[in-house]
Amino acid sequence: MEPGGVSVSAVLPAGGSGERLGGATPKQFCAVQGRPLVSYAVRAMERISWISDIIVVVSPENIETMKTIIEKYGHKRVTVVEGGITRHRSIFNGLKVFAEKQFSSHLFQKPEVVIIHDAVRPFVEEDILSKVVMAAKEHGAAGAIRPLVSTVVASAADGCLDHSLERARYRASEMPQAFLFDVIYEAYQQCTDYDLDYGTECLHLALKYCKTNAKLVEGTADLWKVTYKRDLYAAESIIKDNLSQEVCVITDANETVAQVGFLLPESLKRQIKVETVSISQSRNDNHLQSIFSGQCYNFVCVNDKKCAIQETQQLVHILEKSDIPLLHPVVLISVYLDISGNNSFSIGMEELASIKKFARETKKKNILVYGLLIQYKDPSLLQETVNSAAALIMALIKDRNPELIGQLLVA
Amino acid sequence: MEPGGVSVSAVLPAGGSGERLGGATPKQFCAVQGRPLVSYAVRAMERISWISDIIVVVSPENIETMKTIIEKYGHKRVTVVEGGITRHRSIFNGLKVFAEKQFSSHLFQKPEVVIIHDAVRPFVEEDILSKVVMAAKEHGAAGAIRPLVSTVVASAADGCLDHSLERARYRASEMPQAFLFDVIYEAYQQCTDYDLDYGTECLHLALKYCKTNAKLVEGTADLWKVTYKRDLYAAESIIKDNLSQEVCVITDANETVAQVGFLLPESLKRQIKVETVSISQSRNDNHLQSIFSGQCYNFVCVNDKKCAIQETQQLVHILEKSDIPLLHPVVLISVYLDISGNNSFSIGMEELASIKKFARETKKKNILVYGLLIQYKDPSLLQETVNSAAALIMALIKDRNPELIGQLLVA
Repeated sequence: MEPGGVSVSAVLPAGGSGERLGGATPKQFCAVQGRPLVSYAVRAMERISWISDIIVVVSPENIETMKTIIEKYGHKRVTVVEGGITRHRSIFNGLKVFAEKQFSSHLFQKPEVVIIHDAVRPFVEEDILSKVVMAAKEHGAAGAIRPLVSTVVASAADGCLDHSLERARYRASEMPQAFLFDVIYEAYQQCTDYDLDYGTECLHLALKYCKTNAKLVEGTADLWKVTYKRDLYAAESIIKDNLSQEVCVITDANETVAQVGFLLPESLKRQIKVETVSISQSRNDNHLQSIFSGQCYNFVCVNDKKCAIQETQQLVHILEKSDIPLLHPVVLISVYLDISGNNSFSIGMEELASIKKFARETKKKNILVYGLLIQYKDPSLLQETVNSAAALIMALIKDRNPELIGQLLVA
Repeated sequence: MEPGGVSVSAVLPAGGSGERLGGATPKQFCAVQGRPLVSYAVRAMERISWISDIIVVVSPENIETMKTIIEKYGHKRVTVVEGGITRHRSIFNGLKVFAEKQFSSHLFQKPEVVIIHDAVRPFVEEDILSKVVMAAKEHGAAGAIRPLVSTVVASAADGCLDHSLERARYRASEMPQAFLFDVIYEAYQQCTDYDLDYGTECLHLALKYCKTNAKLVEGTADLWKVTYKRDLYAAESIIKDNLSQEVCVITDANETVAQVGFLLPESLKRQIKVETVSISQSRNDNHLQSIFSGQCYNFVCVNDKKCAIQETQQLVHILEKSDIPLLHPVVLISVYLDISGNNSFSIGMEELASIKKFARETKKKNILVYGLLIQYKDPSLLQETVNSAAALIMALIKDRNPELIGQLLVA
């Protein structure tokens, strides 16, 4: 829901060093499905029309990297700002572009409410952003919270337990947070160097320096912060899951193909949302364009021409013209229906080599092409073969494995 | 390191309902790589020789499920005990089998130190177990802690921020914990119904009822608790990672095969630890047995016989006799080297069907068989083809995708 009548901008601190991840690359720049994590967080903000400016604050050595990311993934309304040596100093720098002309090439329109969100929390939804913004407008400050997963304990000087906190009385403070711009900017101007160097929590500054008790808003589980390597694994799996919600099946009008073109979607429908399009429709871009606008990242082309790269090529061209492959790899499975009924049917090496070559070229455009052969022999076995094909299609879609492109699987 | 001279047993509460996971199956029974999570935690305890008895406490409706799991995965030294309606009551029930005869068919030897660990923390290492046991022997109680990932806040009655905790002063209390048996048993006997119903933290009981200040031991990041769906994803990826550390390449003595049998391991070595064995050695079980004892879960058989199921069958028999496939799926890639030099080389449907049939049978034994074809044509292109084969092998090993078994990939 849009928070009516409030002007909103966002600051994303992305200056962390990612020590806890144990890698050389700071976590916000780690690739998930080939794309840096920070780009997912930026995209999560950018798709929300009521957020005006998105300020990404990065350490000086990563400014060029960040600018390249913005260009490569076509991010809009994003400005890169140089961070300070701590999280608070970076956020302060991000806020200054709205208030002080010398910190930026132009003075941005000061928003009524500013959202602060982490570059390493890629799954933030509009709902929680809207909630913290509205709560901030009312209370001056607001932040997402989550129940504690573990009990929190205080240790004594000797490394022994001093006391345990009663878990139900406390919450984990997460992101996003939102503030009346004047409140948080005032807090940063008032706060001490000690705060700027050792603090991390914006809600605390608003309370301490502006007497603003932030509204705490219960968030969803997907607000978690990518901190450890296991979190990158989890993020990767969640993104793959999100990309595996829908498949578009494109079929020929030919009678036998049409039969498989009917059975295959039926089998797939048990596991995934399916759109079907006939090839003649697919030649008319409009229908496909409407599917593209629905953010479908998986396509299955069914035809009876051996290794029909031409048909697939046509779809690749349409996909390239869309911006679908820009943000996520698109899976394109070319299903070849062998209706020869010939048990000694065989596949030649040259044909396999040509599929692989085509797939390698197409991968450069972030489209992952796989081949799948369905043998149409005994009609009584067709259902079983189609189910097996559906299982392979689901496996290819869920895995999105770039190493297996150009392979011809057999159902 | 073995904690010398201390008798140790373990209690694993596994009675949780897994509400936060959002699924019908309690998280400890969710399958990761086909095996319930609780079995991983049990295995982590069981492999440590100095832990005598492992008591798994489950809710009454899951007792049979748990007994089936123990039987299926061959767990030893494990006893299933019926839990109570809360975590504390379950742990108390687990402890009683060491102290009170009526709670079990026989009285277990009371240990000096008892470890308490969660069924949903599958990655606990011997090092931290040993540390908490030794600290418990010295201090009476000990528990693993981790730095807080998020700031902890206290909310006021109006849902607004009351205060933030200074993150550096607090820690997340994790598992494993360990106690002198008499300390924790006394604490449970003394504590109130309110404690048993609403508390969760054993360290707190030891402090409150036995004046024992637990030693807090800094743990590693892998102690985290599987709580949300994303944690199951992370656990799955970590387990796949652990299984992809080593591959055993078995080759023929034939000259051309030997050349690939040399180049392929060299290429694989850039990404994974590689053991090589000749087929003649593999016929002598001893050498393979020593590799099996090294917990290798990935095998590549290189030969020049078209779809040489016989060779692969032999390895399957040896694997079946070992207990390697009992706990984890084993990947077995049958590499067929085509030395015909024939560009119009082709693969028949019947051969493909026979590989698939074989793979389906073998999958029932938890062995995942894949086919891989390497064409030996131009010697100048051999290195490139071998690198491509190595990339496919790594992809198959890392993914362990059960849907792709029986497929013949082409390098």
